[in-house]
Amino acid sequence: MSNVPSYLQGAWWAPDAVGVPVRDASTGETVAEVSVAGADIPGAIEYARTVGQVALGSLTFHERALKLKELAQYLNGRREELYEVSARTGATRGDSMVDIDGGIGVLFTFGSKGRRELPNANLVVDGPPEVLSKDGSFLGQHVYTRLPGVAVQINAFNFPVWGMLEKFAPAFLAGVPTIVKPATPTVYVAEAAVRAIVESGILPEGALQLISGPARDLIDHLDYRDLVGFTGSASTANALRAHPNVVHGGVRFTGETDSLNAAILGPDAVAGTPEFDAYVRSLVTELTVKAGQKCTSIRRAIVPSALVDPLIEAVTARVAERVVVGDPRAEGVTMGALVSREQKAEVLTRVGELVAAGGEIVMGSLDEPEVRLADGSTGLAPDGAFLQPVLLHFADALAQAAHSIEAFGPVSSVIGYDTVEEAVALAALGGGSLVATVATHDPDVARTVIEGIAAHHGRTLILDRDDARSSTGHGSPVPHLVHGGPGRAGGGEELGGIRSVFHHMQRTAVQGSPAMLTAVTGQWFAGAPRSLDGPHPFRKSLAELRIGDAVASPLREVTLEDITAFANSTGDTFYAHTDEEAAAANPFFPGIVAHGYLLVSWAAGLFVDPAPGPVLANYGLENLRFVTPVSPGDSIRVTLTAKKITPRETDEYGEVCWDAIIHNQDDEIVAAYDVLTLVAKTWPTTA
Amino acid sequence: MSNVPSYLQGAWWAPDAVGVPVRDASTGETVAEVSVAGADIPGAIEYARTVGQVALGSLTFHERALKLKELAQYLNGRREELYEVSARTGATRGDSMVDIDGGIGVLFTFGSKGRRELPNANLVVDGPPEVLSKDGSFLGQHVYTRLPGVAVQINAFNFPVWGMLEKFAPAFLAGVPTIVKPATPTVYVAEAAVRAIVESGILPEGALQLISGPARDLIDHLDYRDLVGFTGSASTANALRAHPNVVHGGVRFTGETDSLNAAILGPDAVAGTPEFDAYVRSLVTELTVKAGQKCTSIRRAIVPSALVDPLIEAVTARVAERVVVGDPRAEGVTMGALVSREQKAEVLTRVGELVAAGGEIVMGSLDEPEVRLADGSTGLAPDGAFLQPVLLHFADALAQAAHSIEAFGPVSSVIGYDTVEEAVALAALGGGSLVATVATHDPDVARTVIEGIAAHHGRTLILDRDDARSSTGHGSPVPHLVHGGPGRAGGGEELGGIRSVFHHMQRTAVQGSPAMLTAVTGQWFAGAPRSLDGPHPFRKSLAELRIGDAVASPLREVTLEDITAFANSTGDTFYAHTDEEAAAANPFFPGIVAHGYLLVSWAAGLFVDPAPGPVLANYGLENLRFVTPVSPGDSIRVTLTAKKITPRETDEYGEVCWDAIIHNQDDEIVAAYDVLTLVAKTWPTTA
Repeated sequence: MSNVPSYLQGAWWAPDAVGVPVRDASTGETVAEVSVAGADIPGAIEYARTVGQVALGSLTFHERALKLKELAQYLNGRREELYEVSARTGATRGDSMVDIDGGIGVLFTFGSKGRRELPNANLVVDGPPEVLSKDGSFLGQHVYTRLPGVAVQINAFNFPVWGMLEKFAPAFLAGVPTIVKPATPTVYVAEAAVRAIVESGILPEGALQLISGPARDLIDHLDYRDLVGFTGSASTANALRAHPNVVHGGVRFTGETDSLNAAILGPDAVAGTPEFDAYVRSLVTELTVKAGQKCTSIRRAIVPSALVDPLIEAVTARVAERVVVGDPRAEGVTMGALVSREQKAEVLTRVGELVAAGGEIVMGSLDEPEVRLADGSTGLAPDGAFLQPVLLHFADALAQAAHSIEAFGPVSSVIGYDTVEEAVALAALGGGSLVATVATHDPDVARTVIEGIAAHHGRTLILDRDDARSSTGHGSPVPHLVHGGPGRAGGGEELGGIRSVFHHMQRTAVQGSPAMLTAVTGQWFAGAPRSLDGPHPFRKSLAELRIGDAVASPLREVTLEDITAFANSTGDTFYAHTDEEAAAANPFFPGIVAHGYLLVSWAAGLFVDPAPGPVLANYGLENLRFVTPVSPGDSIRVTLTAKKITPRETDEYGEVCWDAIIHNQDDEIVAAYDVLTLVAKTWPTTA
Repeated sequence: MSNVPSYLQGAWWAPDAVGVPVRDASTGETVAEVSVAGADIPGAIEYARTVGQVALGSLTFHERALKLKELAQYLNGRREELYEVSARTGATRGDSMVDIDGGIGVLFTFGSKGRRELPNANLVVDGPPEVLSKDGSFLGQHVYTRLPGVAVQINAFNFPVWGMLEKFAPAFLAGVPTIVKPATPTVYVAEAAVRAIVESGILPEGALQLISGPARDLIDHLDYRDLVGFTGSASTANALRAHPNVVHGGVRFTGETDSLNAAILGPDAVAGTPEFDAYVRSLVTELTVKAGQKCTSIRRAIVPSALVDPLIEAVTARVAERVVVGDPRAEGVTMGALVSREQKAEVLTRVGELVAAGGEIVMGSLDEPEVRLADGSTGLAPDGAFLQPVLLHFADALAQAAHSIEAFGPVSSVIGYDTVEEAVALAALGGGSLVATVATHDPDVARTVIEGIAAHHGRTLILDRDDARSSTGHGSPVPHLVHGGPGRAGGGEELGGIRSVFHHMQRTAVQGSPAMLTAVTGQWFAGAPRSLDGPHPFRKSLAELRIGDAVASPLREVTLEDITAFANSTGDTFYAHTDEEAAAANPFFPGIVAHGYLLVSWAAGLFVDPAPGPVLANYGLENLRFVTPVSPGDSIRVTLTAKKITPRETDEYGEVCWDAIIHNQDDEIVAAYDVLTLVAKTWPTTA
């Protein structure tokens, strides 16, 4: 049997060396061998930093996002073959969908968010400019630019596809090449996924490399330009974090490790409530999906003391009714095997420690279980890695083991509490977790618990009757929200939408004049030159329009009659527009003033070029502030300047954001805002 | 002489032990002794985590921000005494102003930003909600809550006040208690500042503690709830970063270390240009301010090869004309002493290494200089730590020493380049720096350089004729912008306005129903219950108004006559509102449609309650999006719901943000936006 190949420097490669055998989780048959002896790791890193960086740098965020979408669509068509490979890891079809469809879902989300939330460019402007001089000639603007190195992604065995794609997608979108290092027990699943990705031909060369085996010297070759994203055990994370290149060399490191996630049952969620039922369903799901081998599983069920027995009873009943342990290739199996006999032995050891520390097994047992075999029969499968779901109960809620020892399998501990404050304190004893649930329909309980536990968690879920059906679940990270947690959970942060893209970029403050910041960012800054010559900017398509193209209107007088007419036609008869005496008593107005809505409506009349042209629609407005009130007899003028131009990749138009500023006859600022329009990419020249 | 006291657990304390003597930088006289032998460090940490956390947690962001402003005003009145203490460190009055006024300026900035950019609450909503179910019953929202531990701040000797306050202000604003550990050589200046702060009585008990000496076991007592902010040498940063509590224990660590900051002279900035002159001024400033003991000083002057000689000449001339080295207490001195003889010896060693590596001293010398003494006379001061400004030239631009060895004093190296790409590559050889300047008036040069170097820097400055006078300068971090940099610069990020507050908070995703997210965040989410009963919400003062209070209007029909009249009165005769045929040809419109401005104007007419009342003014609008076009004959209705309520601490009113949503007769969303109003805190009941 040959070794699982690696994909390095644009080619598949495997060593002749004898590899470590990896076995089918249900049958113990050897599936593959794993070795990367002799792999050119420094070469792969250099390839990423050169070929990969150049290829990704030639694409914009939108172009990269589109490729993620294309890739998601392509992989959707190859799911069945991946499910088949995945079944060898002990994963049921449901488990495989979490891994494979979940991973594809991450690609879709980033494919969509990348185009909606990032510019069609290579640099991101972060936050508003800071005016650093009184005359406005010196500004500061934060920008994000991609890291000039490589993203090394070291994944756990439990989700070989999702784990890979949830790290790859943000790195790729940021423009940083990836080298992925899957965990040995399931590396052949990651290899199958990467093979499909390579065969798709969608990614540019150098964007993704795969090291199919342990590469202990990987971090030796990294420096401050690079980052390492790690998911796995706390001990490995600690070893990597202590690497000299991390401690002294500036390699960015983010870790996501197993944690003792809690689910708190609210005092209101007594047996018979929808919250109690939802909690029981959630606990059984987390126990059995992926045979409990999830870093987000519920390890600690923190429940009101009076509800401990009803809960154990309900969970036991549901497990008896629903859970069929066995070979995932057999019909009707709802819970598969652990990934390996070694992993099962590890879990048994941990459960032993929990029992020794006072945990009582109140559901399931540690005996070799009878399971459903691939042929549909029932029997022992001692070459597989099967285990029944196990529930422990700790009479001593403060027993340290319950809050610190994790059995990474279908194992949870039930812990009683008396007050909500106690429940919060118990949750925090986990020393930092990825996720916690609180099942309650009482807003006060929800607020108290979330306020108390938020800083100890990366994600929290409030489960109640209103979201029990629509909730994505305790154990499911979603690409939109951060995944990771402080302390025991590794101290890292992944996903969270575009936040994770920024983790692959450097934030830099750029100081300079408005003109220079405009040149560097491709976005117009107040104070930079405007181009007021030439045709009206509404006559210019995206092909012709330039940042700084502008139109300035003449003054138009606002009379009391205008204000009155506007009040009458719109129905907005607010006293500040209709009652001189009452208006003058208002702390902000000298007397009757024009409606803010009148001002922006008139401004549109002053800047618009009415004939059909490339400007197709005004789809919105941002950051509108009314600064100086306009009294009857005052006049206003408006200046409109092209500020941001965002052509779409898949439409014949794009977004143009215009800086709009209204002045009065004394050149005071009346109002400032951004006008959002859709503008055609091309238009027959009308000038 | 007794030891410099520490401020621990609300009391001043000093050990009887013999301390390390600290000397006046100019005269060598002993100023103080330093020891914290026997200090109760675990007690101080526990005090911060309990007393400090409780005290700070009882205040909102706005209340804390106001205290920072008060403190800034108070310290402004005690600057003179601090200048006097500061002079002993070798600092000129100008240097002391950078340190002391600069530190007070940080307090002012955070005092102001905290009230403008944070809610008047204890939790920050981060970004928009993510809708995670099709029916909108399940949402995700990121929030920031403060870390439940202590911020340990370890500072460098060069800016004992600024360095302390730039770390303290964001921690305090976040609600995290501080323990500050100043550097030994200038600890007596920090102590004087803390003494003034304590005497002010402005800070709540436990917010700030001071350890006036080396406390090697400080990090031994920290865990994942705590964070360490460090400024100082790379070697100390590395030692701290390797501490088990950082590597394994989840202590958050941010480091800011010295770096080899570059200043690139653009190819266009030849002698005689304003950019050349500004560059020379900047280089001399950075050489001499604080005797060059700034982590942001220019260490590498990267200049076009042809400009190397003119530059050296110009710098030499300016130094000869402007720089008077001496005791800062003497009249006319513009450059003081290094902080100590030890530091001077260190600088001389580094310069020796630079010379050995090919650096040629082209300005100044390493000899003991004649300096202006305190009495105004000129002479040698061998007990002081004086050094002349030194300029080196490296003929070999790639000499590694020039890019890696830092002489932390009045020392810079001049390095020639031939192409802009080469200049970019040379800047990056610093391996990550705090700041870089490029002096150019050519937008293409600015863009190429910034794009090339941004990812290697925390801050960049484009210096040209437009901002030369208004620029805050290469070496001056400003509280609005991030300070820190990747790699050699320590990999940390400080300041950057509210960004640094968030570094003291945990970001957590909260998932739940709209009602539960409303309960937890204090902000109304679409889908949460509205209160449509009772008086119109415009009749409620801040004392009465609650999140979710709402008004829903009846439908109002929009006729073609209305649209035509609006076009004529506003002047907005855009064809989509006036020309049926042309409008129908537009890809987004079925024919003539109502102006977006008509819709929001009418909506105001539909939701407004016109009589004088607690709603004082509409000061702006946010996030307006037009979703469904409105044709003649369609009708619209609006629902307005109180979404965010922000009472001001120092005014009789506050901000209320209203969720506005316009529907048509088919219940389709026409437009959605936020209406921003000012509302009085109280109002005579009118109901």
